[in-house]
Amino acid sequence: MRAEIVSVGDELLKGERVNTNAAFISRALAGIGVPVGRVIACSDHVDEMVSVFAESLQRADLVLVTGGLGPTRDDRTKKAAGQLLGRETELNEEAYQNLAVRIKTYGVEMSASLRDQAMVIEGCQVIQNTRGSAAGMIIACGEQFHNHTLVLMPGVPSEMKAMMELTVLPCFAALSDTVIRHTPVKTLGIGESGLAKMIVDVEDCLPAGTTLAYLPHAAGVNLMISTIGRDRDEVDRDNSSVVEAIVLKADKYIYATSEVTLEETILGMLASKGFTVAVAESCTGGLVASRLTDVPGSSSCFLQGFVVYSNQAKHCTLGVPEETIARFGAVSEEVARAMVVGCLEKSGADVAVATTGIAGPSGGSPEKPVGTVCLAIAHKKGEDLRSRTLVMQGDRQQNKLRFSEAALRELWHFLRQG
Amino acid sequence: MRAEIVSVGDELLKGERVNTNAAFISRALAGIGVPVGRVIACSDHVDEMVSVFAESLQRADLVLVTGGLGPTRDDRTKKAAGQLLGRETELNEEAYQNLAVRIKTYGVEMSASLRDQAMVIEGCQVIQNTRGSAAGMIIACGEQFHNHTLVLMPGVPSEMKAMMELTVLPCFAALSDTVIRHTPVKTLGIGESGLAKMIVDVEDCLPAGTTLAYLPHAAGVNLMISTIGRDRDEVDRDNSSVVEAIVLKADKYIYATSEVTLEETILGMLASKGFTVAVAESCTGGLVASRLTDVPGSSSCFLQGFVVYSNQAKHCTLGVPEETIARFGAVSEEVARAMVVGCLEKSGADVAVATTGIAGPSGGSPEKPVGTVCLAIAHKKGEDLRSRTLVMQGDRQQNKLRFSEAALRELWHFLRQG
Repeated sequence: MRAEIVSVGDELLKGERVNTNAAFISRALAGIGVPVGRVIACSDHVDEMVSVFAESLQRADLVLVTGGLGPTRDDRTKKAAGQLLGRETELNEEAYQNLAVRIKTYGVEMSASLRDQAMVIEGCQVIQNTRGSAAGMIIACGEQFHNHTLVLMPGVPSEMKAMMELTVLPCFAALSDTVIRHTPVKTLGIGESGLAKMIVDVEDCLPAGTTLAYLPHAAGVNLMISTIGRDRDEVDRDNSSVVEAIVLKADKYIYATSEVTLEETILGMLASKGFTVAVAESCTGGLVASRLTDVPGSSSCFLQGFVVYSNQAKHCTLGVPEETIARFGAVSEEVARAMVVGCLEKSGADVAVATTGIAGPSGGSPEKPVGTVCLAIAHKKGEDLRSRTLVMQGDRQQNKLRFSEAALRELWHFLRQG
Repeated sequence: MRAEIVSVGDELLKGERVNTNAAFISRALAGIGVPVGRVIACSDHVDEMVSVFAESLQRADLVLVTGGLGPTRDDRTKKAAGQLLGRETELNEEAYQNLAVRIKTYGVEMSASLRDQAMVIEGCQVIQNTRGSAAGMIIACGEQFHNHTLVLMPGVPSEMKAMMELTVLPCFAALSDTVIRHTPVKTLGIGESGLAKMIVDVEDCLPAGTTLAYLPHAAGVNLMISTIGRDRDEVDRDNSSVVEAIVLKADKYIYATSEVTLEETILGMLASKGFTVAVAESCTGGLVASRLTDVPGSSSCFLQGFVVYSNQAKHCTLGVPEETIARFGAVSEEVARAMVVGCLEKSGADVAVATTGIAGPSGGSPEKPVGTVCLAIAHKKGEDLRSRTLVMQGDRQQNKLRFSEAALRELWHFLRQG
């Protein structure tokens, strides 16, 4: 089975939106052993969609379309599919009931344009929308298209993802005859070439059907070990053997060999040690706290955060001495250390981390350029206090992200050793 | 003139990489009045590329290809272009000299595979690579392809961007006979169908060449008004008239008619009023502070944030009375109001906003389901204190984002009226 993806929307052709939906769908299909042949972004004009759908259905067994199912006039995907296949639309009762419940919650009246969200191409399998109002469709296209299948989903990522996971993937996984296994190996604090050198022996003798990809990110590199084959046990065995070999070579840089985030890993380590945590942030502006609280259940370990942006806030809220700020500057390890001590004291947490730096674009100096960050970490009442200074290169938002990543990395190292 | 973009690379079809190159090229072409008809991602097999290039060259005047020009075995774009057009490759002396200088800097020896980076399709205009080693090409494809043009560039974003800016855009800007203008109209607090209803009269009589697209986001909908034509003044006039008509109809929901973010709009309003701001966050976990501090120069208005996740933090740091928490629950307008008052007092800010809610997935109850957020906002020492409760639907991260968006929206409303 071979798939193509069609992403409908003028915003993709104008570059106003990056096509993340297609990447998600490709990854998801790879997971059930269905390769993607082409990804096509096209405009939302009916004639154009009719051409694109027809061409893709000639080439691919399965054509997944996103976008153009909303309630406004530029939503014409159903019209194009109906025209191509010579079919009318009909009301789907279950979708209509879901819609009625949804709009009631928002206190909105039912209207013709809203009702249209529950209209589907006749004879299709309806994909119920658990996150929004537009119904999705799995349409068997008949002999004129070699019995190939057209899938229509909304372009809103959360709605499309839920439809893929709940309906589309289970439906097509059952029909696929290949098995694929992907295992991530997530690392921190080492670059692409350093890691490549470390695992050269593993890469030199990968089993047939197994590939290794390097996916660099803000603070390190993730590896993706992919194995494809027909036999589930064989695929699992080959994939695991490579992952284990890499772990043997690069253990000290690896924080996960599954799809967990660094934040989840840290919260898990805190919980298993029975530690509470608090953060004191200047340059990261709340991003470290926000990332930690992205994890469900983080409230059992995360007590509080202090975003002390102004010097006055650093002094009044965390007790950083005014002399320390005056003498060493707000961006200094001395201030970071005073912040972390104040944070532990005010919050009563077991562990705390502090950030102060220059995210840019202004505020840099020859001694402390834009991208400089001072980090401090400590355990209970200032025990085991450590600090360090790093310099990153990026724009303001990249720097904030890298600073927050560095703070989380420090926390991970601290918990791993401590 | 009409363009198509072809992005070559199996990593795009496996979803290992998001196609940001295509978005960059589309935006850049829009800037010189060249609309993009389709974006196609395809595999790096020669036969597939030959088909895709041929199809695109039939439809579009200009086909821009990225990827597959590197030195490794999976780089076959030149081979495909040569095969399609029936042309050989030849060494480009200038590219070879650039390459020789570049590799000398890295202390690498010249090799056959490196020399191949300076080989180009015969008769093309060479695009020198100022950021890497692979030469780019602008190829006039002759009568068999209606004298359409094929442009080959590397897939490495920095190399492609430099080629676009230094060579490709200047070359085609001179040939483009169309002018495009895009104006965003950014709204908050209204859904897609509500907004459509409000501006139905405007949408019913759009000038020829002007289109209107709905781009929904977490807390509202942005509109994009695009006008294409041959005369700059006419295009500007038509575009502005539509934007003005929409502003007349939907003014109270519009926060910007240019490419600024809500955060930037708010910081601008704060600065013009000479106000400082502080935030008190529970359920948003630092995200509101982080979003405000994403704006360069935010330190002139943003004083500090309190991420009071635990009840103890709410009480000890912001002085929320324990009885209030016990009586009304941590997620209540009473607690949000006490948080905002404490935040104003501790920070000395002019305006403050507070959030407390249930991001999920657990912690909900029939009275206060997951997705509930209580917001409070006030001006100086608790004057003009307002609060409200909203219920969102989403997973934890979506709820956090929507809660933060709601808090920013309250701030925007407050500043607009105040």
